[in-house]
Amino acid sequence: MDGETKITPWEVTTTTGIDYLKLIREFGCEPIDGKLVRRFERVTRMKAHPWLRRGIFFSHKDLNLALDAYERGEEIYLYTGRGPSSESLHLGHMVPFMFTKYLQDAFDAVVIIQMTDDEKYYFKEKLTLDEANRLAKENAKDIIACGFTLEKTWIFSNLETVGGSLYRTIVQVMRQTSGNLIKGIYGLDLNNSIGQLSWPCFQAAPAFSTAFSNVFGDQHVQCLVPMAIDQYPYFRMARQIAEKLGYKKPATIQSRFLPSLEQVHDKASSTGSKEVIFMNDSHDAVSRKIREKAFSGGGLTRQEHVEKGANLTVDVPYHYLLYFLDNDNELRDIAREYGSGRMMTSEIKKKTIEVVWNVVREHQEARRLVTSEIVQQYMDPNRSFDHSRRHREIGELSEEDQHLGFHFDPYFRHVP
Amino acid sequence: MDGETKITPWEVTTTTGIDYLKLIREFGCEPIDGKLVRRFERVTRMKAHPWLRRGIFFSHKDLNLALDAYERGEEIYLYTGRGPSSESLHLGHMVPFMFTKYLQDAFDAVVIIQMTDDEKYYFKEKLTLDEANRLAKENAKDIIACGFTLEKTWIFSNLETVGGSLYRTIVQVMRQTSGNLIKGIYGLDLNNSIGQLSWPCFQAAPAFSTAFSNVFGDQHVQCLVPMAIDQYPYFRMARQIAEKLGYKKPATIQSRFLPSLEQVHDKASSTGSKEVIFMNDSHDAVSRKIREKAFSGGGLTRQEHVEKGANLTVDVPYHYLLYFLDNDNELRDIAREYGSGRMMTSEIKKKTIEVVWNVVREHQEARRLVTSEIVQQYMDPNRSFDHSRRHREIGELSEEDQHLGFHFDPYFRHVP
Repeated sequence: MDGETKITPWEVTTTTGIDYLKLIREFGCEPIDGKLVRRFERVTRMKAHPWLRRGIFFSHKDLNLALDAYERGEEIYLYTGRGPSSESLHLGHMVPFMFTKYLQDAFDAVVIIQMTDDEKYYFKEKLTLDEANRLAKENAKDIIACGFTLEKTWIFSNLETVGGSLYRTIVQVMRQTSGNLIKGIYGLDLNNSIGQLSWPCFQAAPAFSTAFSNVFGDQHVQCLVPMAIDQYPYFRMARQIAEKLGYKKPATIQSRFLPSLEQVHDKASSTGSKEVIFMNDSHDAVSRKIREKAFSGGGLTRQEHVEKGANLTVDVPYHYLLYFLDNDNELRDIAREYGSGRMMTSEIKKKTIEVVWNVVREHQEARRLVTSEIVQQYMDPNRSFDHSRRHREIGELSEEDQHLGFHFDPYFRHVP
Repeated sequence: MDGETKITPWEVTTTTGIDYLKLIREFGCEPIDGKLVRRFERVTRMKAHPWLRRGIFFSHKDLNLALDAYERGEEIYLYTGRGPSSESLHLGHMVPFMFTKYLQDAFDAVVIIQMTDDEKYYFKEKLTLDEANRLAKENAKDIIACGFTLEKTWIFSNLETVGGSLYRTIVQVMRQTSGNLIKGIYGLDLNNSIGQLSWPCFQAAPAFSTAFSNVFGDQHVQCLVPMAIDQYPYFRMARQIAEKLGYKKPATIQSRFLPSLEQVHDKASSTGSKEVIFMNDSHDAVSRKIREKAFSGGGLTRQEHVEKGANLTVDVPYHYLLYFLDNDNELRDIAREYGSGRMMTSEIKKKTIEVVWNVVREHQEARRLVTSEIVQQYMDPNRSFDHSRRHREIGELSEEDQHLGFHFDPYFRHVP
């Protein structure tokens, strides 16, 4: 990346804005185009998720491997994870989980979710082991609240679970990974702790189904990893190692970052000093944060706004609607009305507050039902998992031109 | 060390002979003196093992911590291990296990034995995971044949066992260990695999009783590690980390290397091209190896031998008797007769063959009784362990002057 932008799995900072196309070129990933979205729909018989159609999940690597396998009637599984470092997840954290839940339905897939309490212990100096493990279970509640099917989902804490087939697979990855490879990909070196240096192997290993004999027996099952783009290096590494180990290369699908409130081209993050919307925020907090902090692309004065309209490309409320307002027609109307200056900044912010609060409120209601006993059920390794595939009518698909007419990349061009 | 001697946990090579006193100075260990041997006997109420009296276990670090704990009526445990890289152990491999069995009796201690199949997979390129694991179980038979008490002994394979409290302790060690520390102690760097770089943390962690909640619950139990001197760096590291983690520093006791057949000052090793005595060798093989390969300190001609006597300092058969002939009086007689030239080289070799074959034969008989089911029993983590202490009469001790009269260091001076 250029000097002002730094993207690692632990840190995303930019002064110039993130050039996503440049980033995926450097990572060796592919952009997702309309043709791939069409194939996704045809194969899964599911209408593409708005985030697929709107270019939020914008990049992939070998997604076709997962589609091919599914098309042949083979099982695929999804792998994602969470580093438990805060009491509650924020809105940006939810994006990969909400999308993974969608993919679980689309592929009838088992989902494996790694809670990386060990990683957070390595990278957060003041965190104790017990606290990291406690946060893992708290965060699991937020994840379960996304609606993952119990019979098809295993959530595990590394501190509790590393061992057995998972450790065997980690050991294989650790032998194939040199210190120089870790340095080249992650910038870690001998000044880091051994925990930090070895950590990428622990994150890469679950992309091979051999890690989970309790779920897959000894089957080699194709893995698909949904993630934000900054996590891709782990799976670039996993793909390199897969060849050496004779395992299936994991397929990946990557999202952009949910923008921070202050800056469309920055990442929403709870580690910086900036404000983010947490999933346990009150209505007042959500409302205040969007009203006071969300950067507006509207005119500085009412007159300027009416004359020139809003600049959607930099407008944070609009981008949040792009994420969380499902209704395509309504979104298109807002883009047109606000972009032309007929809709005011206060109005789009009001709409954004309503839409975002709706997501947060529904999440809070769902999370309230997730007891510690339910968390234990999701984390129980000793149970049978449902590998079956539901019958799905092809009628559930959207029309081709319907979604293609709306497939666009709001970061590089936008539709009025 | 000087340029011609290299000692790491993986490699011992020397052209000049190993200067053990220099080595322990560099490691920061202490020599074992007569005073400490006396205290050991007083506290454990056991006669000192010949290897303690004869300076074979010649060095320690904080052995008094273990003696103090035992004296206060507290439990201590012993930790040792084996990297399973060959089908059978050789005579040199047996030394720490035979001594650990003695210490188990002396301290009524639980013994924890780590089979490092993961390590061997990292360091031996052609070894597969399954083969490493199979060798671990084969080698466990040799270890069990030393007579460890089932109720007080847990043998575990890392590949099968890492996880739970063991993994939690490893994680704590991995956070405290920087890459530079690993480089400084072991000479490993970014050109090594992550498996190799992280390996020392996996070997150090079992020196803390927190690693074994199945055996010790949440008790902090003093650990004593018997080992050959080349393994000390792991525990120097463990001792440094113990302070940071608030755990008890492990105490250690170190042996010299069993000499190779060719050279008193070299280490018996199965990885080089030199011949060693394996525990599954036939009588003919043992006999041939000692007759043909064991370096003699006797005179080159009969006349020279009768005139000058044998040089015991470099005589390999004599050193093997020092290890394996328990009878002090007989050993003293041989030293006098052979050293003065009255006993011939062929005679001491015959005696050595008899003594060594006796050790090998008894081992083979004991090992034959060790079935896979018995190995499973020793490796079962889910059982209760016996932490009790037997009552022992003080009468079992040897006289002070009896053992002190024979306490000597055969590498630096020898008694006629």
